[in-house]
Amino acid sequence: MRDVVVLGVGQTMFGKLPNSTVDELGSQAAKKAIEDAGIDPRGIQIAYSARAVDAQVNAQSILKRIGITRIEMHNVENACASGSTAVHLLWKDIAYGIYDMGIVIGVETMTTSSLAGRLIPPSGKDDLNRLVGETMPSSFALIGRRLMETRGATREDLAYPSVKNHRNACMNPVAQYKKPFTVEEIINSKMVCDPLTLFQCCPFTDGSAAVVLCSEAVAKRHTTKLIKIASSVIMSGDYETADEEITRFSTVERLSNAAYEKAGIGPKDLDLIELHDAFSPEEICAYEALGICNPGDGISFMRSGATEIGGKIPVNPSGGLLSLGHPLGASGTRVVCEVTLHLRGEAGERQIRGAKVGMAEMVGGYIAGMTNPVAGGIQILKN
Amino acid sequence: MRDVVVLGVGQTMFGKLPNSTVDELGSQAAKKAIEDAGIDPRGIQIAYSARAVDAQVNAQSILKRIGITRIEMHNVENACASGSTAVHLLWKDIAYGIYDMGIVIGVETMTTSSLAGRLIPPSGKDDLNRLVGETMPSSFALIGRRLMETRGATREDLAYPSVKNHRNACMNPVAQYKKPFTVEEIINSKMVCDPLTLFQCCPFTDGSAAVVLCSEAVAKRHTTKLIKIASSVIMSGDYETADEEITRFSTVERLSNAAYEKAGIGPKDLDLIELHDAFSPEEICAYEALGICNPGDGISFMRSGATEIGGKIPVNPSGGLLSLGHPLGASGTRVVCEVTLHLRGEAGERQIRGAKVGMAEMVGGYIAGMTNPVAGGIQILKN
Repeated sequence: MRDVVVLGVGQTMFGKLPNSTVDELGSQAAKKAIEDAGIDPRGIQIAYSARAVDAQVNAQSILKRIGITRIEMHNVENACASGSTAVHLLWKDIAYGIYDMGIVIGVETMTTSSLAGRLIPPSGKDDLNRLVGETMPSSFALIGRRLMETRGATREDLAYPSVKNHRNACMNPVAQYKKPFTVEEIINSKMVCDPLTLFQCCPFTDGSAAVVLCSEAVAKRHTTKLIKIASSVIMSGDYETADEEITRFSTVERLSNAAYEKAGIGPKDLDLIELHDAFSPEEICAYEALGICNPGDGISFMRSGATEIGGKIPVNPSGGLLSLGHPLGASGTRVVCEVTLHLRGEAGERQIRGAKVGMAEMVGGYIAGMTNPVAGGIQILKN
Repeated sequence: MRDVVVLGVGQTMFGKLPNSTVDELGSQAAKKAIEDAGIDPRGIQIAYSARAVDAQVNAQSILKRIGITRIEMHNVENACASGSTAVHLLWKDIAYGIYDMGIVIGVETMTTSSLAGRLIPPSGKDDLNRLVGETMPSSFALIGRRLMETRGATREDLAYPSVKNHRNACMNPVAQYKKPFTVEEIINSKMVCDPLTLFQCCPFTDGSAAVVLCSEAVAKRHTTKLIKIASSVIMSGDYETADEEITRFSTVERLSNAAYEKAGIGPKDLDLIELHDAFSPEEICAYEALGICNPGDGISFMRSGATEIGGKIPVNPSGGLLSLGHPLGASGTRVVCEVTLHLRGEAGERQIRGAKVGMAEMVGGYIAGMTNPVAGGIQILKN
């Protein structure tokens, strides 16, 4: 197996961009990634696009705008992990010597999608959870409520990831919201589903992120900053019974254990994590599932400031889904861009100093302990 | 690179099945493929689903019904070539030693899809063809008209692929329409877009097809009938100018040339072809693009009966999209099932005698010479 290098990264602005088409956003990000890689676009041998809703031969229509045609192209979906799944497929192509260089474009136009507003998928006739009214916010509200009941979490604790991530986003030029909020402002925003308020839920976002991956041999012709993918794992969930503790994210545990093992590192070796924080309580449970604190210690770990920029293990320095925004298909690719920028020392004001190892995580279709399909992806990057 | 074997194939009934969900159809096909392969489902190491519209973590939700969880799963789209693209990705995994066995499930529920009725995608603001009213039927009607103007094709010629494919479908137990039509009945059916009548257009179809692929070493433990994938190619189109001759399918030419070269064979070595016949004139142009006749000779080649069962090179013995039906995401996987059955000698009444080499082709988003994105896939199989 060959080492795979992240040679180029490109991101659009994230936000409500109803006048931009998928092709416009996707080709903007692709161009930036190609420029960042310093390559001739004709060197691209394979392409993947990730779009979680409304997918329609997007790699082809995006890349024709920059003259890339006649190559192998695939369009992939894995809910919120769509971008991770596309990165993983390209990683396999290069790691196993099938191709030497390719591009991944994650993109989503949530504000103009006919489907995104139904993100809580329409209930199947045999899907009990959905028939009884389960939605994404209500599921994560249950998790928040459970943290309050069993762990002594306060409403302030549940708001904290959102406070932190909004603060981080102020330092990220591409973020959707660049405004800090106090704990009180978060808690006092409009109630969505008790205990979750509006500012504890990720917004609707348009945007795109692209990465160029290549073999080490190709990379060395273009750069001396070799950011390598130390491991890449995609894993589907299991279907634990409703008896399982819903604050325990078993799929994320299995996923991260596999990613650590393949990379030959442990959670203590990580300098930063970008992860799926669609709803604020999720980030707290993810700390435990990813093993950066002990099981059950997520709240005290968070209170210690460990996941702040400058803390022991900064989480979501980009601003995360809560404040940078969450264009579904783009997010899994976007987290790889963010980690890469830190490992290169190019993350500006929000730079994690001396970052050498980072994790990009994204999970989708995700409701702990319930019966919904789950897809998760992790890439661990090293400089 | 290792040889990859088609170990198991499974198909549902094809037709208007509005009471069946994607999960029901997909898991039916998957179960049949697993039974046909004679394997324990726990041996499945990776899964891909293909669904052209409404994709939503389908591999996960389909496979949980048969207890397959915790593995790498991806959901892919490439318009009508979605099923081909999924087969190709799994083929790469096994050919390059990443995994030893996996499953592909192609599925579509056209009759209940909110999007399938808008299969002619909504026009983008910068898509001139669509803004002037281009639709799939009108594009293929233009191709039919052009064959009449430049090649002396008659209305009878344009109807012929549909006559042939409806006749073939009568011998296929899973086909949507099992009723023969005369040339006159085809021509006199409702006019859709001159010269195309209703029976020259593929129907709306629900259905699913699945294949289990594995390495040769694994296959030998289960069967002596080793149907191998001699080559697999996915290729995106180019964007020829509108000046190009629209009856020439350049992308299919390039795609098939690559597939022949990788398989080390030529068109003369093929014993049967399953191909994308969404509209009847398309099949005639495809004969030329695939090189089974000389350029410009498609009509006389067809008139000779060469593509009938029992002819020189039977095309669409299954009944094709025109009569078996066209559940988009399933079709690219379904053609691999059909070719496999012939190479095994298990195709019943419609069996191509002594078939040793067959091609499964599918193209999507396909409008020759125009600016739309195009995805094409070919698998050549050998016994």
